[in-house]
Amino acid sequence: MDYILILDILGVIAFSISGVLSSLRKRMDAFGILIIAFVTSVGGGTLRDVLLGLPVMWMQDMTYVYVIIVTTVLAVIFRKKLSYLRKSLFLFDTLGIGLYTVVGVEKGISQELPAIICVALGTMSACFGGVIRDILCNDIPQIFRREIYATACILGGLSYFVFLKLNFPESLIFFISGLVVIIVRLSAVIFKISLPSVYKKDEDIRDYW
Amino acid sequence: MDYILILDILGVIAFSISGVLSSLRKRMDAFGILIIAFVTSVGGGTLRDVLLGLPVMWMQDMTYVYVIIVTTVLAVIFRKKLSYLRKSLFLFDTLGIGLYTVVGVEKGISQELPAIICVALGTMSACFGGVIRDILCNDIPQIFRREIYATACILGGLSYFVFLKLNFPESLIFFISGLVVIIVRLSAVIFKISLPSVYKKDEDIRDYW
Amino acid sequence: MDYILILDILGVIAFSISGVLSSLRKRMDAFGILIIAFVTSVGGGTLRDVLLGLPVMWMQDMTYVYVIIVTTVLAVIFRKKLSYLRKSLFLFDTLGIGLYTVVGVEKGISQELPAIICVALGTMSACFGGVIRDILCNDIPQIFRREIYATACILGGLSYFVFLKLNFPESLIFFISGLVVIIVRLSAVIFKISLPSVYKKDEDIRDYW
Repeated sequence: MDYILILDILGVIAFSISGVLSSLRKRMDAFGILIIAFVTSVGGGTLRDVLLGLPVMWMQDMTYVYVIIVTTVLAVIFRKKLSYLRKSLFLFDTLGIGLYTVVGVEKGISQELPAIICVALGTMSACFGGVIRDILCNDIPQIFRREIYATACILGGLSYFVFLKLNFPESLIFFISGLVVIIVRLSAVIFKISLPSVYKKDEDIRDYW
Repeated sequence: MDYILILDILGVIAFSISGVLSSLRKRMDAFGILIIAFVTSVGGGTLRDVLLGLPVMWMQDMTYVYVIIVTTVLAVIFRKKLSYLRKSLFLFDTLGIGLYTVVGVEKGISQELPAIICVALGTMSACFGGVIRDILCNDIPQIFRREIYATACILGGLSYFVFLKLNFPESLIFFISGLVVIIVRLSAVIFKISLPSVYKKDEDIRDYW
Repeated sequence: MDYILILDILGVIAFSISGVLSSLRKRMDAFGILIIAFVTSVGGGTLRDVLLGLPVMWMQDMTYVYVIIVTTVLAVIFRKKLSYLRKSLFLFDTLGIGLYTVVGVEKGISQELPAIICVALGTMSACFGGVIRDILCNDIPQIFRREIYATACILGGLSYFVFLKLNFPESLIFFISGLVVIIVRLSAVIFKISLPSVYKKDEDIRDYW
């Protein structure tokens, strides 16, 4: 369906630009920038496909490769202007993780895996590109410290199975569970919601161990 | 066999808690802690299965997922008390690497791979969860600096093939080569044995290159 | 063909020694040194084979394992003398990336993948061992900051398809596109050529974002 393709491309654009920004901060060269943009965009889906033993999606469909290359070149050229796109990029990124979560969940279902594994695959599809980006940039993955991002994907993935139990039609479930991811993330950012921290103030685990 | 399941669960518990400790030290959020616990527990086996082109074990058997989630929640809640479990956790961890080494070796044998590859697969199953944990936490993998840990797995894996040559019955080989891993590791820690260092005192490779 | 085997072994030797040097700098133990030598040598090809869903090459052919182990032991023993081999190692490394690029491209072609994916697979085969080495050593991958290395592989990979379009015989294409990689890299180093930087002097991306 055409609007899914558009969502997918918007997501890839947002992810590529986040990769470009990370790699520019580390003063990488043109090759490094392209690779980081690439793994940020397709790393999560690649890991999912490798774990499932399925063909890797970006080898089957060249759209990803073209969108990433064009986005990266434009983002590097217009890097001084990227901050004007801040809100659009945030929105594209949120649309992207909504879509990728549901796509990941459905790939798990098509392999007849248990619900909890499908939710994990959906979250992985949406979030692990950023994890690989941060590892290659020698940072601790941001997502392990920024709670609502992954939590939105987990909640969206879980809602998929709730709607499935409630016998919603499949094409509807696709959209509303993606929408759950998007609404949770947008609400969390707009209303500055975050999960309660597991740490007490000034707590240091090294004091106990 | 039931006692193998128990060993497996004890190993997963020890690995999960070591992941929780690493992630708490880095002040990760709830999602980060769970992911680190997860990859520490199943990362080695996952890499082995992906390299062999086999289905990934934790997608086939939900026991891993449940044990990891419960262990992680309990370990975070009772984190101030974890140091009282220090010796038990060390023991569970040692039982775990003994078991995973042998399971990895046998998976290699079932694919008719050469002995040296099987030993590598066994060592990888036991040790690479911790390597991925340390990469995600932005540390140099501990195991590359703590010699006897991996060496115990290698010796246990090699002993498997020695016992095989000596025509020991297969079920016996499973246990005694696992036991080799456990005894080597325990002895190394109790008697403070370490392999001779490859470095001379104050030696710095940068002086030569 | 025998001379391909020789090129392959020279490449593995150069990659292993570069792994040994990185791990010695980080004061890793014997196990860590061997693992780093191993992943530097075969990491790129392993990633390529896993992404393609093909059997991993070093499990099929023990030559790699033996060459890596012998090279690592010798390199550690004679580590004070390695700097005398600087030029030979540079040459072996260059021969190696030439060979691995073409082998990677041809593996992609054998899976009927689009040209751009084949070039990416060739570059990955040649370069990603070093990327994994740097991640395990907790460094930002050198290759993301040292432009001509990967660029040589990309140009060699692209030239493969140019020669294919020009209807050159296949065995000839193998050699001349490998030669393109080697000549580009050698020229870049000898004539100190580098691509124009994407950065202006003192530019800091954080100023814009």
